[in-house]
Amino acid sequence: MEEMAMGFRFFPTEEELISFYLHSKLELEDDDKASNIHRVIPILDIYRLDPWQLPSHCGELCHGDTEQWFFFMPRQEREVRGGRPSRTTASGYWKATGSPSHVYSSENKVIGVKKSMVFYNGKAPTGRKTKWKMNEYRAIKEDPTSSTPMLRHEMCLCRVYVVSGSSRAFDRRPTSAAETSSAGDVK
Amino acid sequence: MEEMAMGFRFFPTEEELISFYLHSKLELEDDDKASNIHRVIPILDIYRLDPWQLPSHCGELCHGDTEQWFFFMPRQEREVRGGRPSRTTASGYWKATGSPSHVYSSENKVIGVKKSMVFYNGKAPTGRKTKWKMNEYRAIKEDPTSSTPMLRHEMCLCRVYVVSGSSRAFDRRPTSAAETSSAGDVK
Repeated sequence: MEEMAMGFRFFPTEEELISFYLHSKLELEDDDKASNIHRVIPILDIYRLDPWQLPSHCGELCHGDTEQWFFFMPRQEREVRGGRPSRTTASGYWKATGSPSHVYSSENKVIGVKKSMVFYNGKAPTGRKTKWKMNEYRAIKEDPTSSTPMLRHEMCLCRVYVVSGSSRAFDRRPTSAAETSSAGDVK
Repeated sequence: MEEMAMGFRFFPTEEELISFYLHSKLELEDDDKASNIHRVIPILDIYRLDPWQLPSHCGELCHGDTEQWFFFMPRQEREVRGGRPSRTTASGYWKATGSPSHVYSSENKVIGVKKSMVFYNGKAPTGRKTKWKMNEYRAIKEDPTSSTPMLRHEMCLCRVYVVSGSSRAFDRRPTSAAETSSAGDVK
């Protein structure tokens, strides 16, 4: 795991993200036990930073990745008290696009819910859309006694990414840190 | 490298494929020295097999990958004798799409040439297009005394893949082996 061969990188499926990483994190309440997981996906209050500051905080096993970055985001204090989450940062705000959607396992079982967001520079509602996007994943509580699936809200998993412009992930060139660390408006 | 963490997989950039894997292979003429490279990308005469037979021959470090498979393909005997390569298999044939294109490094230097192909079931020219595709990469000979870039023809690197239908690689679900090992016409 330490000496990763050239070309190997963290490229998880949504199922791996939810069924392995998010569930492991939710079950390993002790941060020490989760330390190997944090080397891939660290805990971060992502709204304390602007999106282009996030890549440098990614997991140590993912350093050098230039397309997407993963973080565990604990529930905000205001949410615990029954309020709505705040998604405002120093330079702008994250805004949901579309409705949340289900995430399925390879056996077609609903394992989680995904919310997609875009970052806007400036103040709502007049901010300018940027290339920074995010998927926020929540896991479904496995409760055989309940027929209604319940979400686990204490922790979500965020995938932050930039829209590359290339429709096929394979064609991407290794972009320089400078390119991905700037706050660019959508061209 | 042996115990790859969940979600890590071979997802190389084209630059990594050419500048590291193909060049290493071309320079390490001794197969023993290249054995670590063959664990990722084995040598295979891919035209001896139909495309859906290829995934099971991929490198041992890539087992379980369901989207793309990489092989080194030595120059065919008939090409050495000055003929054209034969891209016919038992069930059909590979046919080029478009013109070959250059592959660039992150410093915008031309490092290779890419040829794209689609597999057709049946006999040319009446075969039926399938979902099986391929990129064939050749490296450029580094010769400071020559102003014309020359291709190295003794070995190419092939990326075989299936078109998933999902425009974003991230949204893919882990597909079952059965799904990707069948010869499907394009829907």
